[in-house]
This record gives sequence, structure tokens and C-alpha cells, in this order.
Amino acid sequence: MIIAAERAARPSDFSAPSPPQEGGFCPFCPGNESATPHEILRRRTADAEGGDAWSVRVFPNRYPALRVEGELVRSAHGIFDRISGVGAHEVIVETPRHDVAFGDLSLPAVSEVLRVWRDRILDLSRDERLAYVSIFKNQGAAAGATLAHEHSQLLALPTVPRDVELELQAGDDHWRRKERCLSCDVIRQEREEGVRIVHEGERFVAIAPWASPTPFLVWIFPKAHASHYESSSDDLLASLASALRIVLQKLGTALEDPAYNLVLVSGRLRGGPSPSAHWRLEVAPAVTTSGGFERASGCWINSTPPEDAAAFLRKVPSR
Amino acid sequence: MIIAAERAARPSDFSAPSPPQEGGFCPFCPGNESATPHEILRRRTADAEGGDAWSVRVFPNRYPALRVEGELVRSAHGIFDRISGVGAHEVIVETPRHDVAFGDLSLPAVSEVLRVWRDRILDLSRDERLAYVSIFKNQGAAAGATLAHEHSQLLALPTVPRDVELELQAGDDHWRRKERCLSCDVIRQEREEGVRIVHEGERFVAIAPWASPTPFLVWIFPKAHASHYESSSDDLLASLASALRIVLQKLGTALEDPAYNLVLVSGRLRGGPSPSAHWRLEVAPAVTTSGGFERASGCWINSTPPEDAAAFLRKVPSR
Repeated sequence: MIIAAERAARPSDFSAPSPPQEGGFCPFCPGNESATPHEILRRRTADAEGGDAWSVRVFPNRYPALRVEGELVRSAHGIFDRISGVGAHEVIVETPRHDVAFGDLSLPAVSEVLRVWRDRILDLSRDERLAYVSIFKNQGAAAGATLAHEHSQLLALPTVPRDVELELQAGDDHWRRKERCLSCDVIRQEREEGVRIVHEGERFVAIAPWASPTPFLVWIFPKAHASHYESSSDDLLASLASALRIVLQKLGTALEDPAYNLVLVSGRLRGGPSPSAHWRLEVAPAVTTSGGFERASGCWINSTPPEDAAAFLRKVPSR
Repeated sequence: MIIAAERAARPSDFSAPSPPQEGGFCPFCPGNESATPHEILRRRTADAEGGDAWSVRVFPNRYPALRVEGELVRSAHGIFDRISGVGAHEVIVETPRHDVAFGDLSLPAVSEVLRVWRDRILDLSRDERLAYVSIFKNQGAAAGATLAHEHSQLLALPTVPRDVELELQAGDDHWRRKERCLSCDVIRQEREEGVRIVHEGERFVAIAPWASPTPFLVWIFPKAHASHYESSSDDLLASLASALRIVLQKLGTALEDPAYNLVLVSGRLRGGPSPSAHWRLEVAPAVTTSGGFERASGCWINSTPPEDAAAFLRKVPSR
């Protein structure tokens, strides 16, 4: 767990969740660049419009959960463990437009965002103190967003977080016993069965996973084995952008533009290429509220079988 | 994960979370008993008022995630695993009063609820198909409640859910290496340090746990080692009721009656007494919304150090 006392100053913390502000000042809009911390990266895509100074911007989170400065210290406190909060917490503003949904951006614009994610991971992976980079997007108040303007976030961590570690270990175990990648096995079975396929293109397949914890959860896998997202070519990321837009647009149509979380699950930093890890994107519409049971058990109750979700999403058009 | 397609009929599912209904018909109020499924148990405490026919009622959830009927079948589906949805899903209405908070009920009334929890676990533990009973309470819409009238829920499961199993295994590992209970070690260190103690009575101690995932999380432990909640005497549960009321009232004062989850974490059914498991109650105010990072990593970012939460809660009066 990350204890980040400085974040308590964040206006949205510590009261009932408040909806993203609309109509007020937006620090992510063009012209307000001085309202954000120093820029780490700025890109301008070929299809940017005349007046656009940038298409994608990256800067540190104003209320960072982790900081780049300082030495990495691991220590015991009695029977407890502590590790210093070294890392990075960045914001990726995905478009200069305040009112366009990420999934409705042009193919080159979405591709640029996916390349920026890759390039930030590659840059951060040179820091030997870091063990894992999590990239995620919270869209809508119910999904944890505090600002409406489309953006994603990046957390670079000094340790692999528990649930990622458990999954990587499960992949390692499967590899040791079978000498096959667990995700490749899943992809093969899903393509044979077909019932949980949401969309399939040349290089990516989107599925509603077996025993999905939440309704309409979608995983997007590269069909060819690949352990690390940051090894992706521009060409592969253009294919991913196409698959991701289709999935987001289908979900937007099916569930009337739901709040959602988008997460990259990838291998350990500098740990690849690995035969047992296989990166993916997860798109999780925030259509249910978790309660005490889910919190305590890690087990979710899902009233929408993934087979039903996939059948519905296959039928629904992308915009 | 539990796939419960029948629950899709539940009115609150599948749209944005809606607040608990107020002012309308309440199926949990006295006089509306016929609106609930058949009663499993009914209790009347000594301090019930004249007109009260009952103090606590238990019946099956109308939209059950699991059902008592049927054979327990474990099967493989290609590389996936399936287990039939055998179990129980019950509702415990904790008071006949529609508008009284659980933590403001009388000591005998709270004690009766805690005895009903125990008695339901004891009854269900005779069913050899069941492996674990989770008891939890969602209070307030932000905590997953769909009805405002105070109630808790019980899920009896054919398998120990993942996060409980991981914790029980961690306890087993600690016992094998040290021949000490991990929770007893935690309790000892917390009592020595004092900084994370929220409240301490003769038989129970309430702490804000080290590296709490969420703000103002409180664990209530029996100070004497005990692996299974259902082995508790009436006397011990009266002490627990006292500690729980103090914690709930302190949280109510500190956070202005927050939505919260209350969860019992206990040992495997028929697995005790065990030297390595130690039951507890968790009270988790729902003051933050989780996002994609928490979802994918199992790691939470908490801006309120447990030491600060405990210091604040120690000062705040219980009502």
C-alpha cells in the first residue's frame, strides 16, 4: 500500500466522491499549460488542427503518490515492512480537446497516446530503482476521475504490486509445468470457442474473460506472444489503437458512455522478453459498486455472464 | 468469481449506482414481513419495545448469488475451472427501526446481531459442502447498499475466497517459521507502540492497521487468540458489541456518518481451533473511490496515515 500524506491536500479527497467539474477552469486545456507542473514530454500528431500547439502532454501529477527524488530504502519496523516512496506519478493529457471522448479520437491521435505510454515506460525503465510501471485511465467520477478532460496516469513503482506479482507468478508456474504461456493458452481456447470473443482483428483479440469479476470487462491481447508493452513497434500500437477504439466505442454504445477504467498489465521492468508473461489492456466499465464482500474476499459477484456481454458487444456497432 | 445471472433482474443492477430509496416502501420494516422470502430465524431481545414482534430477522436474499439446493460439482472447461454455485446468501435485518443507525442501537440489540451471526455460521457449518462463511455489511450507497434499513448479509461459499485464503496461508507460513500467530504478533506490537490504537477494552483492541489501504480503516481483534468467530461465547460477543459501538460512533462523529463496509474475517469452516488464524472485524469507511490502479494492482494509495487516523479517533468521543 502507498501512504501518501501530501495527497490529503487534494481537494477531492476526504469527502464523498464529487463528480468531475464541468464548465469551470480546466488545467488540461490549451492555454492553461502554466497551471500544470513542468512538462516532461509534448507531442504533435500529423492530424493536429492548425491552432493546436500539442496533441499529447505529459507532466508530473500535482498530488503525487510517489516521487522521483530520494534514495530507495527498505526497512523493518518491528514485524512490519517499509519501502521509501520512490517512483513517479505522471499525467498524460490525451487530447487538447476538452469535450471529445478518448474512444472517439482519430486513429492517429489514439496511436500517439499509446506510443507516449510506451516511450514513458522505456524512459523510466532506465531507473534501476523502479520495478514496475502501471498505466491506467479513470474516466468518469464512478471510475475515480476527478477531472473530465481525457487523461491517463502513470505510476512507476519500486516494487511489483501484489496482484500483478500473483499473476506473473501464476504465469511462471504454468510455464514451468507446461512450457506454454498461460495467456497464449487462454487466447487459443477463446478463439476456438468464440463465445467470449468481443472483437478480433489481424493482430489483436478482445475477449470478455472467463468468470469476469465485473460486467462487460474486456481484455485486449496481442495475438502474438509478447511479454512487455514497451517492446511494441509503432505499427503494432497502430493496430492496438484500432482495436481499442472499436472496444471503447462498442462499450459506449452498449452502456451509454459508461465511466470506465482502462489498465495496462505488463511484465516486470527490464524482465523481458519473458516466455511466461503476456501483456494486455483491460477495459472495465464502472457499472457496479463493490461492497464489503468484494473488499474482504477478492471475489466478485457478477450478474452478467461474460458470454452474454460478448454476444451483446459483438452485435453492437462501433461508431 | 461468482457468476449469478439471475441477479441481473435486481433493479439496482446495471445502471449508475443509485442512492438507497428513502420514503418509499421498505421490505425490511415491521408489517412488511410477507415481502421477504421465508424467515430462517427471528429473535426478540429483552429490551425490545412493546409493539416489536422481533428485534432481528434472517431470510434468504431475494436475489441470491448462491443457492442451497443442488450438488456440489467441480469441473474443468478446457483450461478454466468451474464449481457449481452451491452455498447460501442470507439477509440479517438488524433492527425493526427504519431510521436508527446500527452503531446507535442499544448494547443488547447489537449483541443480539453478533449472536445471530455466530448462530448462522454454526448452523451452516454442518453443511459439508461449504468451506467458508463471509459476513458483511454495506451501509450507504457509496458502500454498495441498495436499501437504507440497517442490515447485514451472509455468503456461505463452497470454496475459501482468494484474499481470505492468501491471508490464512500467510498465517500458516508465519506459524511454521515462528510458532506464533501473526495477528497476535501484530496486536502485541500495536499495544506496545500505541500510535495506531483507536480503542482498547478488556477483551478487544481496535487499531488502524499499518499501511492501511484506505483512510480510517479499523480492525477489531479479540486480544486472546481465537481462530473462529463462531466459537465466541455470549459474554465475549457482548464485549465485542461494546467495542464495535464505540468504533462506529467514533467514525460517525469523525467523518459525519460515512458510508462504510463492515466485514468479518474468520477461519475456514470446521478448520478450528487453529493456532495460526485469528478472527477480526474490519470497519472500512467508504470515503474514497478506487480507480484503475487499485483495480489492477491490489495496491491502494492512502492519503491518511493510520497513525493520524488513530490519533484523531482516540480524541473523538463516542456518542
